[in-house]
Amino acid sequence: MDAIIITIGDEILSGATIDTNAAYIAKALFAIGIDVRKRSSVGDIREDMLREIKLALEEYDLVVVTGGLGPTDDDITKEVICEAFNTRLVKHEETLETLKMRYKQLGMTMSDIAIGLSLQPEGAHLLINPLGTAPGIVFERNDTIFCSLPGVPSEMQALVDSGLIPFLRERETGKVILFRDISTFGMPESKLAARLLDAGYKPDGIRLAFLPSYSGILIRLRAEGEDEKKVRAILDQNVSRISEIVSEFVFSTDSESLAEKVASLLKEKRATVSVAESCTGGMVAKLLTDTPGSSKYFTQGIVAYANEAKIDRLGVDPRTIKKYGAVSEEVCREMAEGIRHISGTDYGLALTGIAGPGGGTDEKPVGIVYLGIADGEGVSVTKRSFSGDRDVIRTRSAYTLLNLLRKRILKL
Amino acid sequence: MDAIIITIGDEILSGATIDTNAAYIAKALFAIGIDVRKRSSVGDIREDMLREIKLALEEYDLVVVTGGLGPTDDDITKEVICEAFNTRLVKHEETLETLKMRYKQLGMTMSDIAIGLSLQPEGAHLLINPLGTAPGIVFERNDTIFCSLPGVPSEMQALVDSGLIPFLRERETGKVILFRDISTFGMPESKLAARLLDAGYKPDGIRLAFLPSYSGILIRLRAEGEDEKKVRAILDQNVSRISEIVSEFVFSTDSESLAEKVASLLKEKRATVSVAESCTGGMVAKLLTDTPGSSKYFTQGIVAYANEAKIDRLGVDPRTIKKYGAVSEEVCREMAEGIRHISGTDYGLALTGIAGPGGGTDEKPVGIVYLGIADGEGVSVTKRSFSGDRDVIRTRSAYTLLNLLRKRILKL
Repeated sequence: MDAIIITIGDEILSGATIDTNAAYIAKALFAIGIDVRKRSSVGDIREDMLREIKLALEEYDLVVVTGGLGPTDDDITKEVICEAFNTRLVKHEETLETLKMRYKQLGMTMSDIAIGLSLQPEGAHLLINPLGTAPGIVFERNDTIFCSLPGVPSEMQALVDSGLIPFLRERETGKVILFRDISTFGMPESKLAARLLDAGYKPDGIRLAFLPSYSGILIRLRAEGEDEKKVRAILDQNVSRISEIVSEFVFSTDSESLAEKVASLLKEKRATVSVAESCTGGMVAKLLTDTPGSSKYFTQGIVAYANEAKIDRLGVDPRTIKKYGAVSEEVCREMAEGIRHISGTDYGLALTGIAGPGGGTDEKPVGIVYLGIADGEGVSVTKRSFSGDRDVIRTRSAYTLLNLLRKRILKL
Repeated sequence: MDAIIITIGDEILSGATIDTNAAYIAKALFAIGIDVRKRSSVGDIREDMLREIKLALEEYDLVVVTGGLGPTDDDITKEVICEAFNTRLVKHEETLETLKMRYKQLGMTMSDIAIGLSLQPEGAHLLINPLGTAPGIVFERNDTIFCSLPGVPSEMQALVDSGLIPFLRERETGKVILFRDISTFGMPESKLAARLLDAGYKPDGIRLAFLPSYSGILIRLRAEGEDEKKVRAILDQNVSRISEIVSEFVFSTDSESLAEKVASLLKEKRATVSVAESCTGGMVAKLLTDTPGSSKYFTQGIVAYANEAKIDRLGVDPRTIKKYGAVSEEVCREMAEGIRHISGTDYGLALTGIAGPGGGTDEKPVGIVYLGIADGEGVSVTKRSFSGDRDVIRTRSAYTLLNLLRKRILKL
């Protein structure tokens, strides 16, 4: 079953909005073995929308359209759908009732715009929207399934999970497509690939993709076939072979993020952590509290941005700052010891650096970062230098510190 | 000049990677008046890539392809380009030299894979990659310009800014397309739209799009024409009319983010701020330090996750926690007063809530948040309730506190 995802909206074309909806839909479809062959986006221009939808209906078995179902001016999708399926908009009583109810709950009076929402294409099968007012619209023509979903991410996601996927499951696809991810950190894509090549590894019955991000590089394995057991076996073989070759950079083969991995390690060891950060301004603490139940291992963080904060909150010696500067191994060391001391946690993390764009010197250029970890055995400080803009430098610094903590916990 | 952006890679189709490259390219093209009519993505399947590129070459004046130029297995774009333009790969000495240099700088020895990077389509005009090894590839056929860029975001961006855009500028497009954004916070899309409608506003010579996100709703105005002055005038008229109607929700008409707006206000007033946050785990501090030069107004933040941290760091009275609970107006008040006191800043922000998924009760369900601001005139605490998952609740809470600070500074 070949699928295409079409997202509609000037905001996506103009780049004002990053298209996360298509990614969500793609993941959900892949999970039930439906192959997304193409994604496309067009603006709120009637002719472009119609042309794209008609083209898709001819060439794909499943067409999922998202965006343009909200109550705003640029929403002409419903009309275009009517044109594509040669039907018309009629008042849909159920939708109208849902709308009335929802507005009542919100204590809002219904505007003309809202009432317009209850108009739906005649002959469509509607998927109920548990979070919003615009339902999903489904048409089946010949062997093609068409589904249009609202663009608001939360509503779109709810409709995919509770509406589209169950609807599609009924039509079993037979083919099994499975993925496995090998999560790595600390080695660039090209070097990972070279390593595999040099070790004589060749993808065996799978497709391989390297997915780089600032939180590491994901090695994604994809295999398909009729027999799920066989497909899993093929993936397992390749996963263990690859993990073996680049072992020192692999932190998970269970699709855990670096933050999740660190969280589960801390819970496992019943260890606690606190963090003192400067240039990352709270990013490390944020990452450590991303996962539910983080209060089990995270107690507090100090964003010691000004020198006074480093001195007053963490007990950093003013003379150390004066002698070595706030961005130095020595200050990082005292920050790590300080936060561990005041919070009484097993691990005390510290990060100080120059995120830029200003503040760099020849001796300490923008991108230089000191990463410290204090525990019962002492303090270790690592110096790193990152390139990129302020956000990139901050993000890479934060993740690198997490990875250092992971290694420290595992005594690697 | 009608453009299409094609992004290539299984990772985009599968949803493993969010396609931020296309958004960046779209913005850059819009800025020089080139209209992106369509975006599409295909996987690393030769036939799909070739089909999509050939189709695009027939129908658009500018075809920008990104992804699939890195040194990994799934990179067959160059070969597909050769097929589309009916040419072949030849060793490109300049690229080879750049590669050798770069590898030398990195102290790396060149692998066979790296050497493969120096193969480029014969007859192509190459754009030098200032950050990486893979150049941009440009072909001109008939009236169509084709450009292929590497998929690594930083390199792609550098090539767009230093290569593609200057290259396109040479071919003036004549038509002027301009945008203006009205940034709002605190009112849903449908209500904003209803407001405008009720006030009798109709878009006049512009196209309007509502771009919702957790940091507010952007009202994007788009106008085009031959005469830049006239286009600007039309935008100005519409901007002031709209801003008038929904004034109390508008925080910027200069494309400032909420964080940037707050930052510039604080600098303007020479005011300082500190923050004490619980469930957001550092997000507010992170937002306040996103903008360069934030040390001018931000001194420190405390992520007081555990009750002990609230007591030890911020001087919250244990009895207050015992009596009202850590998530309460009273504790939020003491957190705000506490952080302002210890940091000596003009404003002290505080945030405590239940981000979930666990920890909710009938009395205090998941999503309940208390937002506090302390200044010379006292403390004000606002209670809000947000729906969504953990990340959504945390993000909305953090931005809502920023918006409250903005209003407090402006005495709104």
